[in-house]
Amino acid sequence: MARSPEGDRDVEEQRVTTYRIAVIGGTGPQGKGLGYRFAKHGHTVVLGSRAADKAESAAGELNERLGSSDVLGASNVDACEGADVVLLAVPYDGHDELVATLPLDGRTVISCVNPLAFDKRGPHGRVVDGGEGSAAESAQRIAPESVVVGAFHHVSAVTLWGDADYLVHEDVLVCGDSDEGKAVAIELARCVTGRDGIDAGKLRLARQLEPLTAVLISINKKYKVHSGIKVAGLDA
Amino acid sequence: MARSPEGDRDVEEQRVTTYRIAVIGGTGPQGKGLGYRFAKHGHTVVLGSRAADKAESAAGELNERLGSSDVLGASNVDACEGADVVLLAVPYDGHDELVATLPLDGRTVISCVNPLAFDKRGPHGRVVDGGEGSAAESAQRIAPESVVVGAFHHVSAVTLWGDADYLVHEDVLVCGDSDEGKAVAIELARCVTGRDGIDAGKLRLARQLEPLTAVLISINKKYKVHSGIKVAGLDA
Repeated sequence: MARSPEGDRDVEEQRVTTYRIAVIGGTGPQGKGLGYRFAKHGHTVVLGSRAADKAESAAGELNERLGSSDVLGASNVDACEGADVVLLAVPYDGHDELVATLPLDGRTVISCVNPLAFDKRGPHGRVVDGGEGSAAESAQRIAPESVVVGAFHHVSAVTLWGDADYLVHEDVLVCGDSDEGKAVAIELARCVTGRDGIDAGKLRLARQLEPLTAVLISINKKYKVHSGIKVAGLDA
Repeated sequence: MARSPEGDRDVEEQRVTTYRIAVIGGTGPQGKGLGYRFAKHGHTVVLGSRAADKAESAAGELNERLGSSDVLGASNVDACEGADVVLLAVPYDGHDELVATLPLDGRTVISCVNPLAFDKRGPHGRVVDGGEGSAAESAQRIAPESVVVGAFHHVSAVTLWGDADYLVHEDVLVCGDSDEGKAVAIELARCVTGRDGIDAGKLRLARQLEPLTAVLISINKKYKVHSGIKVAGLDA
């Protein structure tokens, strides 16, 4: 699945692989922001959307920012063609139905889907499968011939889309049952934070990582910030 | 509920209130560690345990470390007498039954209880009330005349018991439905991190904070560290 490096734009010494990455939901803020970061660091990005023309328009926006013409747009299904990595960056509503339409066999699938609900008391986690499931686990069940990992749940879309080269004060937490799959997301985290993501355990821990975003949204509202998560104690 | 400052040992400029704090489960590592930090910063700590003699023995251990005789030990029920704050630092097994025995009316109750389960695949969150509950919410339901907040879930007991004056690289996340209750835990966080805890939203977000500890335990095992959580973006 790995490809040899192509081009030398922003290639870091530590990065060894260039991926072709399909961003499902690539016109949404999280998908577009992550696509921007991945493309900026030399990966080939194909933004996907339900409507190909919307994806192409978002790709044009990224190309303009990047001064390139490398970012592509396509329908969600077409975006997956030839992709090494498929990033699921879609709302939880309709998630399962959408995932079932995608050709994911043999691909590394990274889910940053956050099943959240909002009411007058603020944001909170939605209960998936009676508390014993998560969006990432649902995707793995629906696409058993893919390797699903959870990652990039907590990075603010606003910050991703901002000018900072790295979000050095945040960590990307990666969960999954395949070490090989996790290694891909751990490496891609470098495009966002400038360093490896953190192996946070098995895929079922997506039950904890996904709804944690509700806490960050609460903090954002209270303190008027774009908060993220950092794991303390790793540098000791 | 607030008392005037007593003594001047380790009193920080920013701290304005001295509390009498009952630590339920005060002989366990988390309870003893937090009790140590609170006592070190001038609060009156009463360690509680099912057996008063065990609590007295743990209190003796704290007094020896602190060079004081101020830390007390008592049965869990007796420890609550006269307490401003009751810290629940007990295992989730038997939690509800124990809470029901405690005189909590009118007190600020801080729950750092983590409903976790462990199997051969590692730690994960236990499902409380079909995914729509948490230990903190259970405590609030059982003791409706108390004010329950969730906090201190993620601080490693090993680190609490260590020599560092502060755990400056970690944050204490506080959730609750009462701003007054949250203010107490936010202030007490200073004893641990050297600065205010973070208001993380409503009490129901304990559903997210409590099982996050499973992720930290996974990280600890993988990287051989004592990890904690820091919220990024607040200092910006």
